[in-house]
Amino acid sequence: MTIQRILIVSGTHGNEINPIWAVKQFNKDENKLKNGIEYEYIIGNPIAYKKGVRYIDDDLNRSFKEIKNHDQDKSSVYEVNRANFLVDQFGIHGFKPCQIAIDLHTTTANMGTSIVMYGRRFKDFCLAALLQNKFGLPIYLHEKDEAQTGFLVEAWPCGLVIEIGAVAQNFYDPKIIDRFLIIVSSLRDEINKLKNNLIELPKELVVHVHQGSIDYPRDDKGDIDGLIHPERINQDWKMIKKGDPLFLDSQGIIHKYDGDKLIWPVFIGEVAYKEKKIAMSYTKKEVIRSEKQWVLEFESL
Amino acid sequence: MTIQRILIVSGTHGNEINPIWAVKQFNKDENKLKNGIEYEYIIGNPIAYKKGVRYIDDDLNRSFKEIKNHDQDKSSVYEVNRANFLVDQFGIHGFKPCQIAIDLHTTTANMGTSIVMYGRRFKDFCLAALLQNKFGLPIYLHEKDEAQTGFLVEAWPCGLVIEIGAVAQNFYDPKIIDRFLIIVSSLRDEINKLKNNLIELPKELVVHVHQGSIDYPRDDKGDIDGLIHPERINQDWKMIKKGDPLFLDSQGIIHKYDGDKLIWPVFIGEVAYKEKKIAMSYTKKEVIRSEKQWVLEFESL
Repeated sequence: MTIQRILIVSGTHGNEINPIWAVKQFNKDENKLKNGIEYEYIIGNPIAYKKGVRYIDDDLNRSFKEIKNHDQDKSSVYEVNRANFLVDQFGIHGFKPCQIAIDLHTTTANMGTSIVMYGRRFKDFCLAALLQNKFGLPIYLHEKDEAQTGFLVEAWPCGLVIEIGAVAQNFYDPKIIDRFLIIVSSLRDEINKLKNNLIELPKELVVHVHQGSIDYPRDDKGDIDGLIHPERINQDWKMIKKGDPLFLDSQGIIHKYDGDKLIWPVFIGEVAYKEKKIAMSYTKKEVIRSEKQWVLEFESL
Repeated sequence: MTIQRILIVSGTHGNEINPIWAVKQFNKDENKLKNGIEYEYIIGNPIAYKKGVRYIDDDLNRSFKEIKNHDQDKSSVYEVNRANFLVDQFGIHGFKPCQIAIDLHTTTANMGTSIVMYGRRFKDFCLAALLQNKFGLPIYLHEKDEAQTGFLVEAWPCGLVIEIGAVAQNFYDPKIIDRFLIIVSSLRDEINKLKNNLIELPKELVVHVHQGSIDYPRDDKGDIDGLIHPERINQDWKMIKKGDPLFLDSQGIIHKYDGDKLIWPVFIGEVAYKEKKIAMSYTKKEVIRSEKQWVLEFESL
C-alpha cells in the first residue's frame, strides 16, 4: 500500500463549525504523522467560515466539477477557484498529493453519525465497510442524481463524507465535537491497520441508496407552505410506507407519501437544502456483499 | 381599560421561523377579533424572512432608536425604514394604533420558554407577572446596557418579547411551534381577563436582571479561540459561582468565572450574538413585590 498522505477537510461549509474545532487537536506537528502516513488538516472554505455562512458565491461541495490543474483562468465564483486550489495543492497530482480525502460535515437533520458515499467506488466501499463494522454507522450512497454533482471527495481516488447531526449551523456542541474526535481517531487507526494488512472486511455493507428528493408543499407564489409533519421530523433512516405523513400545510392538510415502494428518508428538514428545494431525500436499502477486490483496490492507492 | 388593538410580531429576525408558522392559525379573519380586542399579526422583517437571514442591513430589533412618524427621510438601512414603517402603521399614534406589542423570538440557546423585558415599566410587569404565575416562565430583565438599545417593544407603551429555544435558525420544530401556540393563546386569555378585571396579580415577580455580557476567548487575530465549556453549554438560567468553568480554549485551558458575585448566565452560545461579541450574558436574580399600581397603569393603556 502506497498511501502517504490523507486530506482531512473541515469547514467545506463555513457554518458547519464543530469539525473545525474537533480536528484542532490532531492538527499539531506531533500528531500530523501517524505510522508513516501524513495527515493534512485544512479548512475547506475559510472565508465562508470567517463570515459564518455556508458559502460565498456557490456551494463548495458542488464545485468540484471542472477541475483545472492550473489557475490560469480564474473564475468569478470564489468556490470554483477554491476547489481548483485544493486540487492543485492536495489532489492526487497536486503539490502535496493526497490519496484519500475525508470531508467532515454537520447537518441540522437528525442523521446521527453517518457516512455519505458518492457512487460505487471499491476503495470507498472498503473504508466505509470498516467504519460500519466498527460503529454500525448508516451509509447514504449518493448516485445518479444529475441535479447534484461536483462533490469534493469525488475529486480524489478515495474519499468519504462523515456527516453528523442534528446540530444548528454555527453552534458549537461538545457532544458533536466528541463524535468527530472518535471518528477521526478511528479512521486513523483503521487506515493504519489496512496499511499493515491487519484488516478483515465484514461480509457485507448495508447502504441506503439515493432515489430522489421531495420538495416542501408550496403556495401559488412558490413559497414554502408546509412543515415536515411532526411524525416525520427527526425520523431520518426510518422506513416509511404508502400513506405515512410527510408534511402538514398551513391549511392543516396532511400530505402523505403515496408511492408503492418502501422508502427510507434522510436529511429530513435540512436547513441548507431549502434553497435546493429539498425537504428530504429518500433512499432504498441495499445489502452489498464484500469482495476481496475492495481491499486490493484500496491497497493499490 | 381601553386596549383596542394588540400587535403580535413574528419574524423580527428573518431566520427565526417557528413563531411565523405558529401565528398562522390565529391570523385568520374569524380569529382576529377576540373579546373586543383586535389582533394584528405581522412579520417583522419579511425580506429577511424570505432570504432566510437574520436581517438585511442591520438588526431590526436594535433599530427602534430614532423613530420618525413620517417617511420623508428614507434611511439607507432597510431595517431603519422598516422600524419607521411599523411605528407609522401600528405605533400608539399610528394608522392602526396598537397599545401592546408582543414580539416572538427563538434562540439557539437552551432558554426554554422565557420572557424578555426591557426596563421597569409597570405595564410590562403586570403582563409578565400573569404569564409567570401561569407557567412559571423565567424573565430576563434587560436594562442599563448602552451597547444594546432600540428594541422593538420599547417603541410601544407596553410590550414583551417571548423567547423560546433551543432551536436552530431556519429549522421548523413542531415542539417549538406548539410552545408558541400555547403562549399566544394564553396571552389572549390573560389580556381578556385583565380587561374584565378578573385578574389578581401574584405577590411577586422573579426576574433575572441583566448585568453584562462575556465574550469568547480570542486569539491574536481576534478570532474566537474557545468553546463554551461542556459543563456550561445549555445551562441557561443556572447559577454559577467563582471558579466554575466558562470556556475551553484550543490549548485545552479552562477559562473560569472569577467574579465574587453569584451570577445566572443566559443566551449561552447564542449563534446570532457572536457578531455582537457575546458568548453569554449574565444576570442577577431579583424578586420584585407586586404593586396595585401595575394593574392601574395597565388599565390606563
